[in-house]
Amino acid sequence: MAVYTDIDDEELAAFLSDYDIGPALAFKGIAEGVENSNFFLQTASGRFILTLYEKRVAEGDLPFFLGLLDHLATRGVNCPRPLQGRDGAAVRRLAGRPAAIFTFLDGMWPRRPAAAHCGEAGETAARLHAATAGFAIRRENALSLAGWPKLVASCTPKADTVSPGLAKLISDELAFLQDAWPQGLPEGVIHADMFPDNTLFVGPKLTGVIDFYFACNDTFAYDLAVNLNAWCFEGDGSFNLTKGRTMLARYQAARPLSAEEIAALPVLARGSALRFLLTRLHDWINRDPAALVRPKDPLECLGWLRFHQHVTSAGDYGV
Amino acid sequence: MAVYTDIDDEELAAFLSDYDIGPALAFKGIAEGVENSNFFLQTASGRFILTLYEKRVAEGDLPFFLGLLDHLATRGVNCPRPLQGRDGAAVRRLAGRPAAIFTFLDGMWPRRPAAAHCGEAGETAARLHAATAGFAIRRENALSLAGWPKLVASCTPKADTVSPGLAKLISDELAFLQDAWPQGLPEGVIHADMFPDNTLFVGPKLTGVIDFYFACNDTFAYDLAVNLNAWCFEGDGSFNLTKGRTMLARYQAARPLSAEEIAALPVLARGSALRFLLTRLHDWINRDPAALVRPKDPLECLGWLRFHQHVTSAGDYGV
Repeated sequence: MAVYTDIDDEELAAFLSDYDIGPALAFKGIAEGVENSNFFLQTASGRFILTLYEKRVAEGDLPFFLGLLDHLATRGVNCPRPLQGRDGAAVRRLAGRPAAIFTFLDGMWPRRPAAAHCGEAGETAARLHAATAGFAIRRENALSLAGWPKLVASCTPKADTVSPGLAKLISDELAFLQDAWPQGLPEGVIHADMFPDNTLFVGPKLTGVIDFYFACNDTFAYDLAVNLNAWCFEGDGSFNLTKGRTMLARYQAARPLSAEEIAALPVLARGSALRFLLTRLHDWINRDPAALVRPKDPLECLGWLRFHQHVTSAGDYGV
Repeated sequence: MAVYTDIDDEELAAFLSDYDIGPALAFKGIAEGVENSNFFLQTASGRFILTLYEKRVAEGDLPFFLGLLDHLATRGVNCPRPLQGRDGAAVRRLAGRPAAIFTFLDGMWPRRPAAAHCGEAGETAARLHAATAGFAIRRENALSLAGWPKLVASCTPKADTVSPGLAKLISDELAFLQDAWPQGLPEGVIHADMFPDNTLFVGPKLTGVIDFYFACNDTFAYDLAVNLNAWCFEGDGSFNLTKGRTMLARYQAARPLSAEEIAALPVLARGSALRFLLTRLHDWINRDPAALVRPKDPLECLGWLRFHQHVTSAGDYGV
C-alpha cells in the first residue's frame, strides 16, 4: 500500500494553477506504489495521476525518470507521460515534496498472466528497449553485479533462517556470476522491474507500463531475463515453456536478439533471479511485523534460480 | 487509510458481468474510508466507486444503508447512488465480502471550511432531512443517550491520563444529559457524521455527502447540532459565529426549525460533543501505535463541550 500524504484542497488548487489542465474536479489517494504517494486527479481536461515523491526516490534521479518517460511516450511506448507546467518544468513541489502530474493509463494488472499477456510484455519490452536509443541521461544499475556483494554480505548471516543452506547457495552463485557475467552486449535504458503488477492491460492488450523507478542503463538481454522470471514461472516454481516461447518470439519480432545475447540468457536469468532473491530476502529479514505491506516471498526467486542452474541453453526458454 | 483487499482482475470481470456498465477500463484501490475498502472504477459507461464491506459494517445493515442512498439520490440529494445489477440487487459478493457499486461524485473535501461551505452543509443537511420522509427501514442510533453509559464506563478509567479531571467531567455531563435530553422533537433518518471529510465540494458548491455508515433514526435537530460541532469551530476551540449563522440560516431556508427544536439546540450540541468525545477517547485510549490511521483528537470535542456548557440559548449559535 502506498505511503499517503494528505494534500490540502487549497494547496492543490495553487499547485494546479501552474498547469493548463484546469482545477480539480476529483482527487483521491490511491493505494498503489510503495516508492511514492499517488493520487487520481480529474479535471475538465481529463484524468491524471499526481505523484508525490517520498524519500525512497532520490530527488537527483527525477530528471532521469521523468525525462525517460517523456522520451518513451513521445516514441509510442505506453507509459505515463509527465505534464509540463506553464514554465516548462515537469517537477515542482507540493506538501514539501517533489511532485509531478502524469497522463492516466487505463487498465488493470493481470493477476494470473496467460501466454498472450507474456507475449504483450515481451513485445513491449523490445519496443521500450529500441525506443531508449538517443536518451541522453544515464543512471547506473545499483542492483547489478557490482552491487550484489554488499547485498549478499547483509543477507547471508540470516539467510539460513529462511531456508537451510541458502547462505552457501547465494555465495556460490555470486562467485559463479562474477566469473561468468557476459560483457559487451547491446545496452541502453532498461525498465529492470517489469513484473505483471507494473503493467496494465485492458482485455488482452497491454495498455501501460508503469513504475520506472528502477530503470537504469544495462544490457537489454538482462531486462528480458528479468521479464522471463517475472512472467513465465508458475506459482509452483515450474517454468511455462509456452509463455517463454511466446514472450521471446514477440520480443524478437520487435527487436531481434544477437547470437551473443541468446547465448548469455541463462547466465543473465541466474543473475536476475539472484537480484530479486537478494532484495526480497533483505526485505523479508528486515520486515516490520506491524506493516501492512507484506514482503514478497524470496523463495519464489530461489525456484527461478534453481531452474536456471539446470538450463543447458536458451533453447530451454523457448528461443 | 482504507482497509485494502486486493481484487483479482478475473474475479472483477465476473462480478461486473452482473451489471450493465461494461468491463473495467481502470480499477484502483483508493486510500479513503476506514469502514470499508473503496475502489475507483472506470468503464465505458463512466466512473464509479466499488465498495467492499469489511467487517466493521454489519451485513444486516446494508439494506438500510443502500436503500437510504437510493431513496435520497432519487430525491435529489447529492449522495452516491447504488447501482442495481441485472437481477435488481444492489449488493452481491466479491472477494468473499458484500460489495456494491455506486455513482462517482466529483469534488474534494474542504480542509479549511469557510462560512460559505458551512452554509452549503446546513442546506444539504436540511434537504437530506426533508428527503428521508417515507423511507421505510429503521436503524436505531447506537451512539445516542442510551448508548453513552456503556461508552462512559469503558472510557473513564483512563480518561484522566488524556486530560486531568476528564473522567469526572464526562460523568457529570452524562448525568446532566440524562436529565435534560429533549423528547418529542421531529425525527427521521439523519446522517449523524456529516463532518467536512464526509462531504465533497467543487469550488464553493457542495457536490456530495458520503459515508452514511452512521446514519440512523434520530431527531433532525440533533443532526444539525452534530453539524455545528463539525463545521463551525476553529482549530483553537473557538466557535465562529459567522459560520454558525450561515449554517443555521441556510438550514432554516430549506427546513424551518420549530421553537422546540431551537430551544433544544444547546442540549443537543452538548450531547453531540459528548458522543464524539467518547468515541474519539475510546479510539485514542485503544490506539495501536503501529497503525497508519492517526486517531482524531478527543480534546477537540472537549473544547466544543465547554463552549456549549456556557451557552445561554440557541441565539449564541446564530439562530
